[in-house]
Amino acid sequence: MKKITIHSPATVANLVCGFDILGLCLNEPCDELSVEISPEPGVQIINNDDFDLPEQAEKNVSGAALLALLEETKDVTGFIITSKKKIMPGSGIGSSAASAAGVVVAANHLLNNRYTKQDLVRFAMNGEKVACGVKHADNIAPCIYGGVTLIRSVFPLDIISIEAPDLHITVVHPQIEVRTADARQILKQQVQLKDAIKQWGNIAGLVAGFIQHDYDLISRSLEDVIIEPVRSILIPGFYEIKKASKVAGALGGGISGSGPSIFMLSKDAQTALQVEAAMKNVYDKLGVAYHTHVTIINKSGVKIV
Amino acid sequence: MKKITIHSPATVANLVCGFDILGLCLNEPCDELSVEISPEPGVQIINNDDFDLPEQAEKNVSGAALLALLEETKDVTGFIITSKKKIMPGSGIGSSAASAAGVVVAANHLLNNRYTKQDLVRFAMNGEKVACGVKHADNIAPCIYGGVTLIRSVFPLDIISIEAPDLHITVVHPQIEVRTADARQILKQQVQLKDAIKQWGNIAGLVAGFIQHDYDLISRSLEDVIIEPVRSILIPGFYEIKKASKVAGALGGGISGSGPSIFMLSKDAQTALQVEAAMKNVYDKLGVAYHTHVTIINKSGVKIV
Repeated sequence: MKKITIHSPATVANLVCGFDILGLCLNEPCDELSVEISPEPGVQIINNDDFDLPEQAEKNVSGAALLALLEETKDVTGFIITSKKKIMPGSGIGSSAASAAGVVVAANHLLNNRYTKQDLVRFAMNGEKVACGVKHADNIAPCIYGGVTLIRSVFPLDIISIEAPDLHITVVHPQIEVRTADARQILKQQVQLKDAIKQWGNIAGLVAGFIQHDYDLISRSLEDVIIEPVRSILIPGFYEIKKASKVAGALGGGISGSGPSIFMLSKDAQTALQVEAAMKNVYDKLGVAYHTHVTIINKSGVKIV
Repeated sequence: MKKITIHSPATVANLVCGFDILGLCLNEPCDELSVEISPEPGVQIINNDDFDLPEQAEKNVSGAALLALLEETKDVTGFIITSKKKIMPGSGIGSSAASAAGVVVAANHLLNNRYTKQDLVRFAMNGEKVACGVKHADNIAPCIYGGVTLIRSVFPLDIISIEAPDLHITVVHPQIEVRTADARQILKQQVQLKDAIKQWGNIAGLVAGFIQHDYDLISRSLEDVIIEPVRSILIPGFYEIKKASKVAGALGGGISGSGPSIFMLSKDAQTALQVEAAMKNVYDKLGVAYHTHVTIINKSGVKIV
């Protein structure tokens, strides 16, 4: 039976001012996942890593995504997933999205690509439902489409690829746990109109900055007056990291997804490395354990190996 | 003494989902305004129309704008404004902005264009303060810059020109009065986070649609879940006009500024005329008096005659 192996990349959701609507695909880290058609009905999961993720399909992010696909597929009844995750669950850089998006892209390849990218997002969102209780697409969409994506609407799905200039991304992942469900729960359900206006000015500026390749405008627009002030309290040294990164030359950045990872965008590779050094310096002083990634935008998303 | 005459155009602020941050410049109607340097200190106003606008400079929109400019100008102490307004005050298509923006552009021409467009917006916003109590730039900026403008921030001013495809605009002005101050007052100062997210998805979509010349995306993004549901109650037949316009082929539209005018965007001139006919039909049936305008985007703003 044919087996498809893919690399499924990490992603940064929200992009500071674009809560729930913007996402960006990273070149690394990537999960390595394989999918093969099985004569057994349902989804069987083989975990080849140390993360101790559930092996029962309905409770597993990849499993739930493929079960959703199987519901619409007539001539295949089962899949086997072999998973080797490198994106740490709970890091805030789309670990669950990589699992869910990766397997549906692989399965679609086995099915001669009968489904559109939008269909695949729809299936994969069932994985996010398992991970955090909400069908959101701001990691799934950039993981499948690559680049920067706008999710204008989830119901009905409306995904728009946003052209962006070359950007270098530095991510620091403090080794603490922030559950997406908790990070959602602390948000206020009402916002001031004046703050909302500020936020949508920044979102409009960020989108225009991306498409018009205006780095200064991107930098000015990377401001979040609604979510960051609340969620940043869950992340040690957040404002110190942000300040040190800007001093090191970053265009700007903030919480990656619901955290705890923090990402920064830079114009060139050298600056991105200086930002990494600045981040390390802050966490070394604070005695916070961390991992870092320095990477670029992945323009094509999940890749068949 | 040299006298400069300009045509200062009407504008549409907000553009449905971009409350307080987006504006678009219309090709017509335009006010005709003249400015000349005066040996007398201060600003003298001659109104050549029937609108009975104040002639005391501090209480007049144009006067307040030029007084702000005079405060920063050393070698000129006075101006005479001759005003022939064609844009009806209170129509919701930037009548006060046309007065304020027009005279500062003309005065700047007399001063050998020593001020930047951004300076001119700053001066002209003092006219808006007189008109509605708030220094807002979403009519002033498109009037001075032309085209579609994003006002990312007012303090400090950050204005971005947004490239847009050819668009045809139909405006209907029901002959009722909606004071901008009243239209501001009825807005709720708090909004639901979920509505704000929907709104910024649409704003991001609208900006992307403009720059990427994607008419379908523009059409899908012309949706306002926050301001329109509240303000539309002040405008007779609002939803009938909107529905009939969409049936006639409009991409979409909504309240122009704070109303009562309603604007619709169309892809071509013929559709814009069909939309006009549909609007007339609705208001004729409802017995509401109205004026209409069918025009295109003015890409250069205030024009020296």
